[in-house]
Amino acid sequence: MNNWRDNIRQVVPYTPGEQPKKAGMIKLNTNENPYPPSPAVQQMLRGMSADILRLYPDPTAGMLVNALADHYHVDPDQVFVGVGSDDVLAMAFMTFFNSEKPIFFPDITYSFYPVWADVFRIPYETKPLDENFRIQAQDYHGENGGVIFPNPNAPTSIMEPLGFVRDIVEHNRDVVVIVDEAYIDFGGTSALELTKEYDNLLVVQTYSKSRSMAGLRIGYAIGHPDLIKALNDVKYSFNSYTMNPFSIVLGAETLKDENYFKDCMEKIIHTREWTAKELTRLGFTFPDPMANFIFATHPKYPAKELFQSLREQNIYVRYFSLPRIDNYLRITIGTDEQMRTLIDFLEKYVHYQA
Amino acid sequence: MNNWRDNIRQVVPYTPGEQPKKAGMIKLNTNENPYPPSPAVQQMLRGMSADILRLYPDPTAGMLVNALADHYHVDPDQVFVGVGSDDVLAMAFMTFFNSEKPIFFPDITYSFYPVWADVFRIPYETKPLDENFRIQAQDYHGENGGVIFPNPNAPTSIMEPLGFVRDIVEHNRDVVVIVDEAYIDFGGTSALELTKEYDNLLVVQTYSKSRSMAGLRIGYAIGHPDLIKALNDVKYSFNSYTMNPFSIVLGAETLKDENYFKDCMEKIIHTREWTAKELTRLGFTFPDPMANFIFATHPKYPAKELFQSLREQNIYVRYFSLPRIDNYLRITIGTDEQMRTLIDFLEKYVHYQA
Repeated sequence: MNNWRDNIRQVVPYTPGEQPKKAGMIKLNTNENPYPPSPAVQQMLRGMSADILRLYPDPTAGMLVNALADHYHVDPDQVFVGVGSDDVLAMAFMTFFNSEKPIFFPDITYSFYPVWADVFRIPYETKPLDENFRIQAQDYHGENGGVIFPNPNAPTSIMEPLGFVRDIVEHNRDVVVIVDEAYIDFGGTSALELTKEYDNLLVVQTYSKSRSMAGLRIGYAIGHPDLIKALNDVKYSFNSYTMNPFSIVLGAETLKDENYFKDCMEKIIHTREWTAKELTRLGFTFPDPMANFIFATHPKYPAKELFQSLREQNIYVRYFSLPRIDNYLRITIGTDEQMRTLIDFLEKYVHYQA
Repeated sequence: MNNWRDNIRQVVPYTPGEQPKKAGMIKLNTNENPYPPSPAVQQMLRGMSADILRLYPDPTAGMLVNALADHYHVDPDQVFVGVGSDDVLAMAFMTFFNSEKPIFFPDITYSFYPVWADVFRIPYETKPLDENFRIQAQDYHGENGGVIFPNPNAPTSIMEPLGFVRDIVEHNRDVVVIVDEAYIDFGGTSALELTKEYDNLLVVQTYSKSRSMAGLRIGYAIGHPDLIKALNDVKYSFNSYTMNPFSIVLGAETLKDENYFKDCMEKIIHTREWTAKELTRLGFTFPDPMANFIFATHPKYPAKELFQSLREQNIYVRYFSLPRIDNYLRITIGTDEQMRTLIDFLEKYVHYQA
């Protein structure tokens, strides 16, 4: 009796960053944007009626897909949308990684990749970053079932140039190469233009970081229409209606306010530069940051202890208890004031411990 | 070159009902509720700020889970939520149907079941409904990898009694039995109370029909905490954050307005009875309807032609070009006025053709 438990899919689920909602907390642990969505979003929301919820939404999320296509100067049949880039990436793993050969991704990277591989029973091999946490393009030249890497990489914040992406795609024309550009808007150069040349390249982006809408859950992929059709076929085999009208309407609306967006990006890049300078002054080292976070270590103070001490001050950063990176903190770039508070605390910490 | 296409997951996607948005159309094709969500939902929406979208939502959707647990008098660890019951069912297929043995479901039923089985490569066997479109409990007594059926069944609208559900669960203690109760609130008796007795029974319901919120995308499953934990583990291996704050907050809010809900259900049941009487008068026959739709056929007029003629009048019903049911129409129960318009047209149609 009760053997039903034997047939449960055994998984080791992804552990998302904590989402505490504490008064006065400084939340620098899940790479959210410190600035609210564009005021245009609030205004559009004011005009929305709950009555539209009675009907199923547009299963194609056409308004959002068209807005993204316009924004990135591609055709609507080159755009796929999902419930955050995690949904888009999960669908892409299911859709494209069906070879017997292992897929390749870096050993230090977004920790959801091995989780998706496991849940979908996809063989995989991780390729170690070098001693400077750089991805080595030639590691991805061998025979494989597909390639995925983030650019900039997480949690390192390191951006590789377009030639690097091209090299990996060139050497992998027989499989799908996914470039996960969750953090591209913080100063990076997108591989989007390469999708015109390479029909096996899928570029994935998200509203959760640069667009200040982690809560709304919107991610998207851009690529050759054959890639997008295959993704949509699998999506329609899973859940016909994934995007609610708030996602569709507000997601389309925010793309219209490009000035607000650019202003936010400039502020965050500026704050990142200031924070980097201050961290250096305090003795921290880190790879050149090109995302909205800095991946920092200190020669004297163990990251785990720093993490705990910051927590006690109601400052949340991310700590990974993982090989090679267990002496690093991933610190999201917040407002100037938040980063000032962080640096002030670290300054006292360094003095007190010295 | 370009062999990447060989590794694409091959699927035959589910075809959702049309979602045209035409002025003046009478939309009786996808079983939506003709009445808007509770006014409490609109009021709550008015108070919501776009600023909360900056942060990731609660990955556990705790507010919604707790509200559902309160509402159904179960513990929060007995409740799983997803992006519509399609998301919940997709997760349940992935999580529980991992045997080498085929899962069982009716031959005439929700047409998404074989699609999920295909996409997740789950073997399945369909069990034919009898000549009155009834599910035969004994068909589900044999060895299998799991059982799923809707109650009331779709598109037949036939409700089986609790003893029927109990019989199937009793004969399948070694596998998970899923009862898909999308249409339970229109006069049926839920199998929820059986989840206290049987740890292998999962009951799935949705906000899309009775709760007037097809657009918001909320489905939920209730069962033993071990079932719910297994579902959550797979969910967290797929997408950590599936429910946006609108789903969480408005989904919880609407459960508070039980009077409005009951009033809607009574109106729809009343309209269903009137429509059934009128259809009978016009010579249609159909199984006793217990969902918010009627599955009707006429001895003289082919369903496909009726479907086309109704469409030309801007009245949309659902027609399935499938064996055994290709002479039936699935007609959603709308408002009294909408059903009056439908019946008036059918009356003229019958006269004109006679």
